[in-house]
Amino acid sequence: MKGIRKLAVLLAASAAIFSTIQSPAQSAESSGKAAQAQSAEAAQSEKIRLTRNSAAYWTVTFNNPPLNIVGPTEVRQLVKILDRIEADPNVKVVVFDSSVPGYFVAHYDLLKPLEDSTGMPSGPTGMHPVPDFMTRLSRMKAVTIVSIRGRASGIGSELALAADMRFASREKAVLSQFEVGAGFVPGGGPMAYLPRLVGRGRAIEILIGADDFNGELAERYAYVNRALPDVELDAFVDGLANRIASFDQYAIVETKKLIDRASLPPQAEMQPGWDAFITSVQRPAAQSRVKALVEQGLQQPGDVERNLGHYTAKYRE
Amino acid sequence: MKGIRKLAVLLAASAAIFSTIQSPAQSAESSGKAAQAQSAEAAQSEKIRLTRNSAAYWTVTFNNPPLNIVGPTEVRQLVKILDRIEADPNVKVVVFDSSVPGYFVAHYDLLKPLEDSTGMPSGPTGMHPVPDFMTRLSRMKAVTIVSIRGRASGIGSELALAADMRFASREKAVLSQFEVGAGFVPGGGPMAYLPRLVGRGRAIEILIGADDFNGELAERYAYVNRALPDVELDAFVDGLANRIASFDQYAIVETKKLIDRASLPPQAEMQPGWDAFITSVQRPAAQSRVKALVEQGLQQPGDVERNLGHYTAKYRE
Amino acid sequence: MKGIRKLAVLLAASAAIFSTIQSPAQSAESSGKAAQAQSAEAAQSEKIRLTRNSAAYWTVTFNNPPLNIVGPTEVRQLVKILDRIEADPNVKVVVFDSSVPGYFVAHYDLLKPLEDSTGMPSGPTGMHPVPDFMTRLSRMKAVTIVSIRGRASGIGSELALAADMRFASREKAVLSQFEVGAGFVPGGGPMAYLPRLVGRGRAIEILIGADDFNGELAERYAYVNRALPDVELDAFVDGLANRIASFDQYAIVETKKLIDRASLPPQAEMQPGWDAFITSVQRPAAQSRVKALVEQGLQQPGDVERNLGHYTAKYRE
Repeated sequence: MKGIRKLAVLLAASAAIFSTIQSPAQSAESSGKAAQAQSAEAAQSEKIRLTRNSAAYWTVTFNNPPLNIVGPTEVRQLVKILDRIEADPNVKVVVFDSSVPGYFVAHYDLLKPLEDSTGMPSGPTGMHPVPDFMTRLSRMKAVTIVSIRGRASGIGSELALAADMRFASREKAVLSQFEVGAGFVPGGGPMAYLPRLVGRGRAIEILIGADDFNGELAERYAYVNRALPDVELDAFVDGLANRIASFDQYAIVETKKLIDRASLPPQAEMQPGWDAFITSVQRPAAQSRVKALVEQGLQQPGDVERNLGHYTAKYRE
Repeated sequence: MKGIRKLAVLLAASAAIFSTIQSPAQSAESSGKAAQAQSAEAAQSEKIRLTRNSAAYWTVTFNNPPLNIVGPTEVRQLVKILDRIEADPNVKVVVFDSSVPGYFVAHYDLLKPLEDSTGMPSGPTGMHPVPDFMTRLSRMKAVTIVSIRGRASGIGSELALAADMRFASREKAVLSQFEVGAGFVPGGGPMAYLPRLVGRGRAIEILIGADDFNGELAERYAYVNRALPDVELDAFVDGLANRIASFDQYAIVETKKLIDRASLPPQAEMQPGWDAFITSVQRPAAQSRVKALVEQGLQQPGDVERNLGHYTAKYRE
Repeated sequence: MKGIRKLAVLLAASAAIFSTIQSPAQSAESSGKAAQAQSAEAAQSEKIRLTRNSAAYWTVTFNNPPLNIVGPTEVRQLVKILDRIEADPNVKVVVFDSSVPGYFVAHYDLLKPLEDSTGMPSGPTGMHPVPDFMTRLSRMKAVTIVSIRGRASGIGSELALAADMRFASREKAVLSQFEVGAGFVPGGGPMAYLPRLVGRGRAIEILIGADDFNGELAERYAYVNRALPDVELDAFVDGLANRIASFDQYAIVETKKLIDRASLPPQAEMQPGWDAFITSVQRPAAQSRVKALVEQGLQQPGDVERNLGHYTAKYRE
């Protein structure tokens, strides 16, 4: 695979620059010890932290500074958390949020060798772990709420779309599917979710215009349920989660089943999106655009990540 | 059916409190005399009043104070009205509104024995009269407009969703599907209608968050077409109805057929919703929540009905 | 066909009034010479002008004063332009706009003999050229953006709906599907597109209420992506088009394919809409309404065209 080698080369070339991203937590996290056994201190250093606020209400916090990048390692960790949510009989509601200022989840890791992604074994749905995760997330018995403060691009936006509800900070949220602007197809299912959520016209604008959407515009487009003043966001989401946690689980689950029947994107649309991502990102045209973005500062804290929509449009062949 | 007995018991226990709801009009209404034959005075005392503003424009007014509760008796009356709308060759547009201050339709009658509901013979679609009514309402040749002033919860919201268009008072409308908060699944089809109308994310918030939505937020979520200043609502709805009544019936009907083809929820999703309601409401968990709400004042005029979303979240096991 | 003769009669009766619409450009345009070969001066006189801003970014401008009426002649011209867009390997984005003050596209030509429309040979999809055009427009590899300043009614609104994105002038756009108000069924597919874009309730209001929608309300209803201040509209649309033109074509096309899979109305819904238009417009009830509108000034510059929603509701049998 020539394309894969090129990405690997790109990674090698940039390794020095991005070595700061490799936090000490990363090597520890693959040790496989169950989160239940970890001390509170260890939990604080988890890149993706699971907190049980109560038996019925859990929180998953992206805690992987500086950008909350999600790559193969983090996908494995997310899948483990999903396994535990699915296996637990009592959890009714799960909130996803971030502890990293400025970022919910910046985007998928574009500096890891592509084989790290393509080589992952399929999940229970028979699909690659990324579309598998998104599909299972949408079909969970527990209700899922995403609280977006900072940037949610690429897989960050995709996770938000696959969840049940999305609330955004009016001042501090930035949502985008930047991928087309970087030369490749989004892989985590937004072509299935967005048109059904915001309508075909706005979905095409988000996915092919590929620009940044602030909280207010994201609400106007129904990209999120609501954008709330930043000072109110946490209390609102926590209030809604506690509310649902106080409700009867059977009523929640049976109601959700019928909502799913009316509104879930067909599972058959998910794997093709991932395949289109893998195929498209290997092409020289995409490699060249990603490389240009990386050279300007992609996947490092700074202006490129903060204003990604601006930088994707600056590429000239 | 142990569950059914329990509801009956609940009714018996609360009968004294709720006897005020049984207005004199109730016994009269089952006499079956056609509305055409009734005097104006009798029509004024109908719990659901049919007014022919003209051959083409009719109004159906909920007139069952203090809460416009809809139960088996009122469903039978609604079905009779539907029969007459369907049978009339000239009616082009029907407006549903309320004469009761504060309430469009509070919700389904939770104090009648469940057998009164489960024992009703199927309607023409082969479904129970509630999903049958909703399905036929959506498929009528006549265009239907719901004007919402006051609370439209449960079956009130469901009737509004099954109709063609919904307009709400900006200051005085409150919409909700409170059912999950009371421990059971909504029965009149909102899991089929809402996700297609407002998108999956907002539908889950409405149905599983189960909270109250004022007119302004209902418009932002596309739960209603528009929320209008209260002083403008009646003139707007009347203007729209007169406008449609002035149009050519063939053009209306043929256009609606093609809209239906693109947007009507499949009939097959309706009966499962009703079944889920009946199954879920009989469980002790639901009985216990309903009982707690009734003890606080459910189905009586007062703060519980006015702020139902607040009270459903107060239950503690 | 008695109805067809009636329309022809209507045309004959009104020929004197409407002869001013027959601009010199009309006879020239059927000569079939390719646009590439035309001088800039000839291009300026084209009723529908194709401009290549760059290899990747083209503009199609309605330039048929005073109302940008689209009839059989203009449909043939639009199809030729579509052929060229489809055949070109490099075009990535096409903007549709208008050079005529006050009008994007007023509506379909109601004064030409109906045979001119019904007699057109089918397009590549096997459908009549109008539904064929709309269907092909939605399925093009190139991304399409409609910039609406002035009135977009009937086929103008339908073209906007079949395109990928729609942006409107907040002050100067007026969208409508006025057809039901004139006694016939819309023919260019809005019953397929609108409910999927704005939801069933608002689609019924637009299509059966048949009234005018200004830019602000069109945005609130998701009828357009956004309404922008008039002074910003051109720069915004041009910026978005340039942005997309700078992106990688493969990524655009493959992403659009998956959006199409999730959101394109089935082709099978398009021809029935056209058939319903043809059948309904021939009836005496429709002829009578169209005639009344024409006598008041339909298809002439003036108040009827500017306030079409008002005039359709004034008809009395």
